[in-house]
Parts: sequence; structure tokens; C-alpha cells
Amino acid sequence: MVPPAALVDLLRREDGYLIISHFNPDGDTLGSAAALALALEGMGKRTLLLCRDTVPEQYAFLPAVGRFHTFEAAAASGTDLREYANLVLVDCNAPERTGMEKSPLAGLTFRNSVVIDHHETENVFGDIRWVLPGAAATGMMIHCLVRELGVDLTKDMATDLYAALVVDTGNFRYENTTAEVLEAASALAEAGAEPHVIHREINETWSEGRFKLFLKVLNTLYLKDNIAITSVTRKMLEDTGTTPDDMESFVSTPKVIQSVKVAALLRETGEREYKVSLRSRDGINVARIAEAYGGGGHRNAAGCTVRAGLETAKAELIEKIKEQITLSELQ
Amino acid sequence: MVPPAALVDLLRREDGYLIISHFNPDGDTLGSAAALALALEGMGKRTLLLCRDTVPEQYAFLPAVGRFHTFEAAAASGTDLREYANLVLVDCNAPERTGMEKSPLAGLTFRNSVVIDHHETENVFGDIRWVLPGAAATGMMIHCLVRELGVDLTKDMATDLYAALVVDTGNFRYENTTAEVLEAASALAEAGAEPHVIHREINETWSEGRFKLFLKVLNTLYLKDNIAITSVTRKMLEDTGTTPDDMESFVSTPKVIQSVKVAALLRETGEREYKVSLRSRDGINVARIAEAYGGGGHRNAAGCTVRAGLETAKAELIEKIKEQITLSELQ
Repeated sequence: MVPPAALVDLLRREDGYLIISHFNPDGDTLGSAAALALALEGMGKRTLLLCRDTVPEQYAFLPAVGRFHTFEAAAASGTDLREYANLVLVDCNAPERTGMEKSPLAGLTFRNSVVIDHHETENVFGDIRWVLPGAAATGMMIHCLVRELGVDLTKDMATDLYAALVVDTGNFRYENTTAEVLEAASALAEAGAEPHVIHREINETWSEGRFKLFLKVLNTLYLKDNIAITSVTRKMLEDTGTTPDDMESFVSTPKVIQSVKVAALLRETGEREYKVSLRSRDGINVARIAEAYGGGGHRNAAGCTVRAGLETAKAELIEKIKEQITLSELQ
Repeated sequence: MVPPAALVDLLRREDGYLIISHFNPDGDTLGSAAALALALEGMGKRTLLLCRDTVPEQYAFLPAVGRFHTFEAAAASGTDLREYANLVLVDCNAPERTGMEKSPLAGLTFRNSVVIDHHETENVFGDIRWVLPGAAATGMMIHCLVRELGVDLTKDMATDLYAALVVDTGNFRYENTTAEVLEAASALAEAGAEPHVIHREINETWSEGRFKLFLKVLNTLYLKDNIAITSVTRKMLEDTGTTPDDMESFVSTPKVIQSVKVAALLRETGEREYKVSLRSRDGINVARIAEAYGGGGHRNAAGCTVRAGLETAKAELIEKIKEQITLSELQ
């Protein structure tokens, strides 16, 4: 992994960077953007970190992540955004993924625009585009960039980047956990990142309400024919004082069961309306199922909305999932 | 980490090894012993892998682990155990931890006896003792030994050793996850270990019964004053067709809640008798609590037996835990 020379040149030459994370931010976009800001500041450059949404609580501990402003807050603060004439999109590759076009930033022009991302894309936005769909996390790319820039990798930067890796590899459990990822993780730990502390801050900071919701959701488990279905009503969220954000990863929990090939979580979003999250393994294509309902996603992780009562929605889904399991077995 | 020259010399010089894992075997003792056997076989040596207990199902996929014999099976097979004149204890440092002294092996004498382990000990058993309490896993030591012996690190060996690391570091989440551990993991992945496959085989192969037990146990959750208590009755095990082995890690689940400082799981073992597992964080000493009941363990993980009815046992424990939390706050 080598960053484009044009990118390295630009970062050495220019001053003033508006560094923007994607909306609904996760640990990769936040940690990567924050580490990049710290690296540029280490080179004596001015940076401003922006995101449409406020930082989720479990990432607030990350160094420099406290410096993120929402677009509104940045505009209201009176900061002259034109002082940050270079735009860098981190962990996304088009302005639409940042929400900046429908914000006080709409209409700003930049001297240079840069994209650093690992998502597949057909976009063309950006004077310099460094997009590596093969990278496990954008954090891998920033780590590499920091080395190339010759900046000292500080404990703060290492912590941000380690968190980025942890989030996008499921704490080194997903298929994207390669020798290269583990080598980078080792270098980051060597530079001061503390794996167990980062794990605890990100994954072991549930509220009691979230745990109660977890139990309520698991108690709805319906298991049949290698399919696991759970569901959550609006009342469950109300009763536990939680929000849909608290459900992150719940859909995957029943996948600890060896026989489960597809897991689905139905969340009530309205009268006879459910948002469905789908997860699969062994090559079963759940994107197909989601597409049938006008949704989409990847082969092993997809989502859609089903308009029906809960029992009807479940029964329909099970039929569609069974078809996909059969198809995958025929392959 | 450098293995003793005497150990390397012995392994180069001698032939015929009885490699023994500790009883109640885990991924570190099994993976480490199997990798060592493969390495020695790569040098043209004969080895025999032994363990008092049969291999738990989730480790059966590990290369060469299928070659483990119980002491009884080895004795019954007619193999002349004297052909394996060199004893190697792996991931334990005294014969008592293997159960060999109360088996058909009792009374066997060896030309050399070797200990390779990372557990704290006051034992003196073994002509050559390589004991490193600072090592995250015995797998780290075997990895280092394989390099020192100059044997090719095969995919099979790498898979065994990666599993050893995964099990003893909680998939790179515990405090023992250092830069050195991650560097070894990277080298093992480079040699062919597949992190996501190993994770799935070890952690995502629950039976449906085990998941049902998980739910039943979590549904007993009692949360108060930073303490989380869960419990399991003999009937729950019966109803779900599970064994106490299926409860591995259940005690720690409530630790995802930010406020929980101590988690306890009470398992009914007899009439008014409970086996208690204790886990803590933030320096709270649960070994003290266990010792008060004649048990023991480490500061953050300990166990004991309480003889009382469930409600009395819980109330007593809560009092003792509160004392320890107060003490830790006074420090």
C-alpha cells in the first residue's frame, strides 16, 4: 500500500484542511480523520474536523475526536471556513456521503479536494482520489500515509488508528483481517495504542437500558431451518430508554449458533412497517432478498423495509431466505 | 523471547516425545502441543500427543489435534510408551496439572523432562523448565521455539498457534494483547492461518441448546451498585441438554455494561450449593472474595463454592463485593 505521490506532495505543500467524515460516523471515519488532523498538525498545518452528526459516545475517548464540529456549529462559530481551502473526505468518496451539500457548507469552493477511502465506488469526485476497496479500513491507509509523510506516529494517532482497525475488522474477526492488518495493529500498539483499553471503551460501555433491550430482543428469537429471526418493537425501545443506535450488532448475535446461516432482525418503524437487517454466511446472498423489497447491500449484509404485520413479514422473509439457502446449496 | 539453548539442543538431539497438555484442555494447551508435535515431526522425530480429557468439540478442527489420545486410549492401544522417552508438558508446569499421575502413565520414567509454560508457578518439576509468566500464551513461546529450531512454519502449525493466541488473549481483547502478540499473529496469518475461519470455528459453533441456556442465564440478571449477578440451576442445564462446559464466558457477558465493575455467576452444583465465578475490572480484587469462601484465583478472575440457598448466597456475595469495591475506591 503506497499513497499517491500527488497526495503526499499536496499535503506537504498546502496549508489549511477541512477534514470531513461521513454522516452516521463510525470508528473508522472518526479515528482516521482525527489521526490525519494530528499528523498534519505535526507538520505545522491548520486543520478543521467536521461531521454532519455529533460523535457517538463510545468514540468520544479517541484523541482529537473531541475537536469534531457539526457543520452548523462550525458555521455558527464565526470561523472563516475559507481559511481551510483544502477539502479532504475521509472514509467516503463523494460529498453526498457527508451531508455537506445540504448544510451551511453548501456552495463553498476549495483549492484542492482529496478523497481517502476504502469503499467501492463509481464516483469521480475529487482532484486526488485514493480509493482502495481492498483495504480493511481507511485507518490502514492513514497509517501508511503518516509513515510516508515522515511524521512521528504519536500515541494519540496510534490510538485513533487502532480504533479504526478494530471497528472495521470486528476486532480482528472478519474476513478482512489479514497479516497486513495485524502487522499495522502491532505497529500501532508499539507506538502506544492500548488494545484492551480501546476494546473496553468501544465495546464495553453499554448503558443498562441497552443491555435490557438486548435481552428483550434475544428473547424474541425464532429459530428454524438454519434461520434466526429476532424482532424489536417501538415499545421495547421506549421501555428501555434506548434508540435504534443501541441495536448495533444485535442482528449478528444469533450467528454464534453453528447451524444459523441467515440472521434477520425486524425493527418496527411504523404501523405495519419493519426495517429488516439481514446477515448471512457460507456465501448465502441476502442482498437478493433485500433487493426484492427495494433495499440493498452486500452478499452477507443487507437491509430493506417490509410493509406488513410482524407475523406476515416473518413468514414471507423465511420463504425468501429458504430460497436463497437452497440456491447456495445448489451452487 | 528466546528459548533456552539447552531446550533447543535437546529437541535437536533427542527422538521420541510424549507431549502432554493440561487437563480440561483449552485452545492454548492443545494448539501449542499440536504445533510442537508438527514441528518435531518436521525434524523427523516421533511424537505422541496425550491429554487426560478428550478434545472439546470447538478445537477439533485444529490441525493434528485429532491425534490426541487420552491416557487410557494410549495405554489400551498397545503402544510402547517407553519409545517416547522425552516428556514435554505444554501450558502447564507440573505433572499434577496433567492428571498423568493417576493414569496408566503413573510410574513411567523419562530420559528427559521438559516444561514449556506461561503460568506463574512455584514448582520445580522438569530437567529443563522454560516458564514465562509474561507471555500472553504458550503459543507465543512455541512460535518462537519453531523459529529458533529453523523448522518451516507450515499453515497447519500457524493455524494451531493462531488459535492458541486467540483463546488466551480473548481474541486480542485482554490486557495481554501486546505489540509482540499482534506481530506474532501477523506472522502466523502470513504463514497461512486464516483469522476469520479460526474465529468462527472457536467462537461461533454453539449448539442451539447452548444459546437457549445463554438466554436463560441472562434472564436471571440482577443489576445493582455496579454488580451484575446471574445464576444457573441444574434444571436449566437439563432443559437445554447442555453441560457446565457450555457456560464458558457467560459470567463475563454483563461486563459489556459500562457501570458493571464485578460480575458473578452462581451455578447450582447440589442442594444449597453453588459454584461461583467472579470477574472484575478497574483493579477490584475478587480473589479476596473467593478466598473468604476457601476458593482462589486472580485479582480479576476467581472462583469459589458457596453453601447456602440461592437468595442467601447472592445477598452474602453482594455484601462482600461491595466491601471490595469500597476498598478499591479508597486506594
